[in-house]
Amino acid sequence: MAQNDLMDKIVSLSKRRGFVFQSSEIYGGLNGCWDYGPLGVELLKNLKEEWWKWMTYRDNIEGLDASILMHPRVWEASGHVENFSDPMVDCKQCKARFRFDHLNDQIQFKKKKKILEEYATLFPIQLSSDEEEISQLFNSILEDNEKSLKLLELLNCPQCGNKGTFTAARQFNLMFKTFLGSVEDQSAVVYLRPETAQGIFVNFLNVQGSARQKLPFGIAQIGKAFRNEINTKNFLFRTREFEQMEMQFFVKPVDDKKWYDYWKAERLEWFKSLGMNPNKLRYHDHPKDKLAHYAKEATDIEYEFPFGWGEIEGIHNRTDFDLARHEEYSGKSLKYFDEESKEKFIPYIIETSAGASRSFMAFLIDAFHEEMVNDELRSVLRFNSKLAPIKAAIFPLVNKDGMPDVARNIEKDLRKYFKVFYDDKGAVGRRYRRQDETGTPYCITIDTQTLQDNTVTVRERDSMIQERISSDQLKNYLINKLW
Amino acid sequence: MAQNDLMDKIVSLSKRRGFVFQSSEIYGGLNGCWDYGPLGVELLKNLKEEWWKWMTYRDNIEGLDASILMHPRVWEASGHVENFSDPMVDCKQCKARFRFDHLNDQIQFKKKKKILEEYATLFPIQLSSDEEEISQLFNSILEDNEKSLKLLELLNCPQCGNKGTFTAARQFNLMFKTFLGSVEDQSAVVYLRPETAQGIFVNFLNVQGSARQKLPFGIAQIGKAFRNEINTKNFLFRTREFEQMEMQFFVKPVDDKKWYDYWKAERLEWFKSLGMNPNKLRYHDHPKDKLAHYAKEATDIEYEFPFGWGEIEGIHNRTDFDLARHEEYSGKSLKYFDEESKEKFIPYIIETSAGASRSFMAFLIDAFHEEMVNDELRSVLRFNSKLAPIKAAIFPLVNKDGMPDVARNIEKDLRKYFKVFYDDKGAVGRRYRRQDETGTPYCITIDTQTLQDNTVTVRERDSMIQERISSDQLKNYLINKLW
Repeated sequence: MAQNDLMDKIVSLSKRRGFVFQSSEIYGGLNGCWDYGPLGVELLKNLKEEWWKWMTYRDNIEGLDASILMHPRVWEASGHVENFSDPMVDCKQCKARFRFDHLNDQIQFKKKKKILEEYATLFPIQLSSDEEEISQLFNSILEDNEKSLKLLELLNCPQCGNKGTFTAARQFNLMFKTFLGSVEDQSAVVYLRPETAQGIFVNFLNVQGSARQKLPFGIAQIGKAFRNEINTKNFLFRTREFEQMEMQFFVKPVDDKKWYDYWKAERLEWFKSLGMNPNKLRYHDHPKDKLAHYAKEATDIEYEFPFGWGEIEGIHNRTDFDLARHEEYSGKSLKYFDEESKEKFIPYIIETSAGASRSFMAFLIDAFHEEMVNDELRSVLRFNSKLAPIKAAIFPLVNKDGMPDVARNIEKDLRKYFKVFYDDKGAVGRRYRRQDETGTPYCITIDTQTLQDNTVTVRERDSMIQERISSDQLKNYLINKLW
Repeated sequence: MAQNDLMDKIVSLSKRRGFVFQSSEIYGGLNGCWDYGPLGVELLKNLKEEWWKWMTYRDNIEGLDASILMHPRVWEASGHVENFSDPMVDCKQCKARFRFDHLNDQIQFKKKKKILEEYATLFPIQLSSDEEEISQLFNSILEDNEKSLKLLELLNCPQCGNKGTFTAARQFNLMFKTFLGSVEDQSAVVYLRPETAQGIFVNFLNVQGSARQKLPFGIAQIGKAFRNEINTKNFLFRTREFEQMEMQFFVKPVDDKKWYDYWKAERLEWFKSLGMNPNKLRYHDHPKDKLAHYAKEATDIEYEFPFGWGEIEGIHNRTDFDLARHEEYSGKSLKYFDEESKEKFIPYIIETSAGASRSFMAFLIDAFHEEMVNDELRSVLRFNSKLAPIKAAIFPLVNKDGMPDVARNIEKDLRKYFKVFYDDKGAVGRRYRRQDETGTPYCITIDTQTLQDNTVTVRERDSMIQERISSDQLKNYLINKLW
């Protein structure tokens, strides 16, 4: 299957079956925001719950749920106010605003080549006829303060067509800002958090003290974050509102390498433990010269999406950067007192930062399979049963002989423990196909034999093998398979 | 115990034991925002999970998780842009801004009385010497457009002391606004949702179609909402960032009364089913003349907090108001086609809207008890075991004879299924007290007899009765008690 086709199928399935809808769709949608439908919310809940159990059902990790709005000084300390930005230019004539890479995309290849040739003395760079290379050269000029001024004078605005009407470049901050209280001025500005991590850093001593933890220990948190992305793209991959699953592990500086390696391995294992195809997972280690300002070592866990490899989690050695900055900006000590060595110091932090929304999309795509069964195309979501939105479906075969009553009793009994689905409509083959496409691991059929000997058939999604078991055993059968 | 003392104890316990911290505390806090610590996040997760199961493990309710940012037209349709506001005045001299009720609070009783007496012809109202009554009269004048102008001329600004410097009153909208995209102008304004309900309304047909539901059915959602409250108060009761658990039930108009009564009873039952004291719960039915603009009938479920009765959930008959407005504003049909009667119509909506944050506080306060046990004060959180943050604690009695190994093995085995806590520090009496204050329902003690016959003692939190059982039976024992 072509990879574009696969992406189209996933987006279409998501809407049709109720995994993901466009936000505010009846109003034409809101760019970069998505709503999780009945099946999507279960898949998302399940994957967050599995992360939570994997990460916090340990004696050295505590949970946290910090607020989305935080004190604005937090984002000065973190560096986001200063650095979390993209360069933009305005057209003075028509007031249109462009991000550098947008502007670059909107100017034709020929035009770029002509400018670079004509003004070779101004921009003394090696010319190539390759479109991508020209585009990169162009961008490198835009990123050079002095040269960009000259270049912008030579360009026409893609919107109004006027030449030389651009302002100098300015940094555009990606944090959403709002005003707290009744006065809309600079003193009231607060931000929607662009990452959940800072809520953990500022609570380091609150958590350590109340939970009586000693190093090494971690704090885990799941929550929404917001970035005013100019380029949203690839369905759930780059959105303006998204959810993160982050854990910050506080260690003695001397142990940083050991714990970095531990968490790097542990986090990849998590994706595999929930059935993600290992061949579609890889590490991307960041080279030393490309590390973020806070990082000593960093790797991405990448999944091979239909549009290419993309980060679904980052593991970072953040050193003492964050706690030291918050000490400096808050004036409060964030040092840890080590009872054994009687030393006071700022711990190092090993961060594991996973995208819940991106993981959701990776698990959804990874589960999607099409196969021929008896000359018919079967579309099936092979979710690990812990992730599956619906755990079991109940099918009474025909609508007679009190069969619905038996089926309804089974449904009622199982519903206390599992998310189940009752379906008595249409041919049983169609009901199976519908549940395959939902990813439901078990389908339970109630037939005439059930009325005689109290047995039902249980059909497993992937193998399609059917077993006949006593309906009294159903609950325990499913508990053994599912929990 | 005096009710103020109780509130102080709850706030102090919350911080000390890690239920709730002030947001951004090291920066002096952020008014109206709170962070849930290690115990708090578990309690909050458990109560949301119990709500989710109670509400969506039915065949006529579907789940949803809509985005916080929505298309701005949503809030025009809902009436929030126009109506969701408080009246404010500015001092032209010192630029201070006051909400009417704030201004009223800040002006002395004597001053108010004097003005009302001196200008009796301007404000012909019955005078009383009662402070509260004077305050109410004063507010009623402020709320009257014409009279308020005259009154404001006679008042001194509480901040700068100047007289007659107030502007006329203006409406201040309580929605937080931000800008989507790179241009900060009116066309880019979006709001942080002030309620989760609208995400459900705009997705009505998406959910109904993808889940193949028929009336009556509901859509349930848990999520954050934001209100720029000027008066935050009472700990988690009135905050700027909070979480809601809402369900909108779509019915035929003729069935509205039946389902309103059903959900009114059902929702009260939910709080009771999780052990909340029935004597501290009551309905507050809204009188017909005080109903919100969208409501035909409404009731609050109130809990008796230390500061008085307060709403923790509202049940509303919203009629066809919301869907009709969204039809009008979006231009998209939101009618339901009834296959039996072949009719197309807009369903009525019965809403159940609970505060997750408020319910959290109610469950926490309701669980708190102090009692004398053997002449010592025991402080205990009597949480229903489904809500308890930690399900079981494991205590090795002395640190010898391989006892820690046995205890650690029990911990390891139970941790797969439950949130457990291991504690080997200090006298066992102190460990019990610590877990009582955490609300842990079961404490398991490993002693010298364990090493001989493989039995452990299990002590139940409320009765403090201890049972001796085989450690092999522990898992099933706890599953039976807890699930």
